[in-house]
Amino acid sequence: RSGKMAKSTKLIDNEVFQAYATYTAIVLLKMMLMSLITAYFRITRKAFVNPEDTASFGKGESAKKYLRTDPDVERVRRGHLNDLENIVPFVGIGLLYALSGPELSSALLHFRIFAGARILHTFAYLIPLPQPGRGLSWAVGYAVTFSMAYKVLKTVLLL
Amino acid sequence: RSGKMAKSTKLIDNEVFQAYATYTAIVLLKMMLMSLITAYFRITRKAFVNPEDTASFGKGESAKKYLRTDPDVERVRRGHLNDLENIVPFVGIGLLYALSGPELSSALLHFRIFAGARILHTFAYLIPLPQPGRGLSWAVGYAVTFSMAYKVLKTVLLL
Amino acid sequence: RSGKMAKSTKLIDNEVFQAYATYTAIVLLKMMLMSLITAYFRITRKAFVNPEDTASFGKGESAKKYLRTDPDVERVRRGHLNDLENIVPFVGIGLLYALSGPELSSALLHFRIFAGARILHTFAYLIPLPQPGRGLSWAVGYAVTFSMAYKVLKTVLLL
Repeated sequence: RSGKMAKSTKLIDNEVFQAYATYTAIVLLKMMLMSLITAYFRITRKAFVNPEDTASFGKGESAKKYLRTDPDVERVRRGHLNDLENIVPFVGIGLLYALSGPELSSALLHFRIFAGARILHTFAYLIPLPQPGRGLSWAVGYAVTFSMAYKVLKTVLLL
Repeated sequence: RSGKMAKSTKLIDNEVFQAYATYTAIVLLKMMLMSLITAYFRITRKAFVNPEDTASFGKGESAKKYLRTDPDVERVRRGHLNDLENIVPFVGIGLLYALSGPELSSALLHFRIFAGARILHTFAYLIPLPQPGRGLSWAVGYAVTFSMAYKVLKTVLLL
Repeated sequence: RSGKMAKSTKLIDNEVFQAYATYTAIVLLKMMLMSLITAYFRITRKAFVNPEDTASFGKGESAKKYLRTDPDVERVRRGHLNDLENIVPFVGIGLLYALSGPELSSALLHFRIFAGARILHTFAYLIPLPQPGRGLSWAVGYAVTFSMAYKVLKTVLLL
């Protein structure tokens, strides 16, 4: 493919960028999945937060009892927020890293480990696995993002 | 404009990218607006969370009573968090989609529907509209982002 | 450096983009730091939210008492969420702004003020400083992002 790369100046024809695009789409889709899991638990546990969401269960007190928190719903929501806190830096720093000219093998290593760690993190949170399962999967993703940030700053630093 | 596009290799001269930039700026500004609406409700409802924010209301018990949650404030905050959960994937996946070479008409369709759905979602949340108003507007934005992710992965998949 | 820029079509060789990459990496790393500070306060204050996180403190009631909220932990978490709400728009709009062809001096001014304001905001939140310290640092970052969005929309508007 390097011949094709040499002829094109388009980002999308750059293999490192293709890898970035693939793994960014995967982790963002994984994060989006958390919304569906939250909705699933809200509906099956009948635990809502907005009065208008319980209107189909009747009026007054009969509906009001479904305005409550549920441990399973809250657990998914914490996992979702943890995704936001960690996947946002990956997407932003990962883009800069992909543009900073890393080796394809090195880039793939970063992206694969990050995506794997975040998928493990979700399982560790939702099953839940005993600690340090969730802690370690979080730390691995964090370290990968930090490593990419280091490469970016080493390459481009302009303060 | 295609003549201009053919001569330039700059992203910003690509019409699909211009459309992406326009709608990304719009939905991010809309999300930023949620901070101002939260501040407005905190001040008018006198409902704060940080002790230092109520210092101007006096000391001790007279200020402490303003450290409370208010349903309107919490509603705006939920809308803001929902924006983060949905607009972050749009911005990330939308960028990759814009670079994956879609037709301008197809890209505009995606971006316009997403922006419209998220603006409707905010109105549905804050008024609030009866369900399934908010649910549907959420689902439309979600589906648009999913459709763009599908196009990205079909174009660039490099695992 | 302009000679080098003229020869290269790579984003990463553009000085405005280098400045964007530098400050984006800095503010995202700063945001990531909030996770470590949260973990630090959770451990030193012994205030956890997931039952599996307290398993090392024993079983049953002896561990259950550590499932509680702590004001310091909640304060860091609010600062972290505020970072997400403000740094996400900066990263997204800042990228479009960097590609819209601003003067390097003007771009550096925007990026430096934003990064400085967000670092001040974190100190103002965590110390905490009396208001309007935190409010002003928030407003400055908000205004910088708004100014970049204005430049983007003036340059690329394609609805």
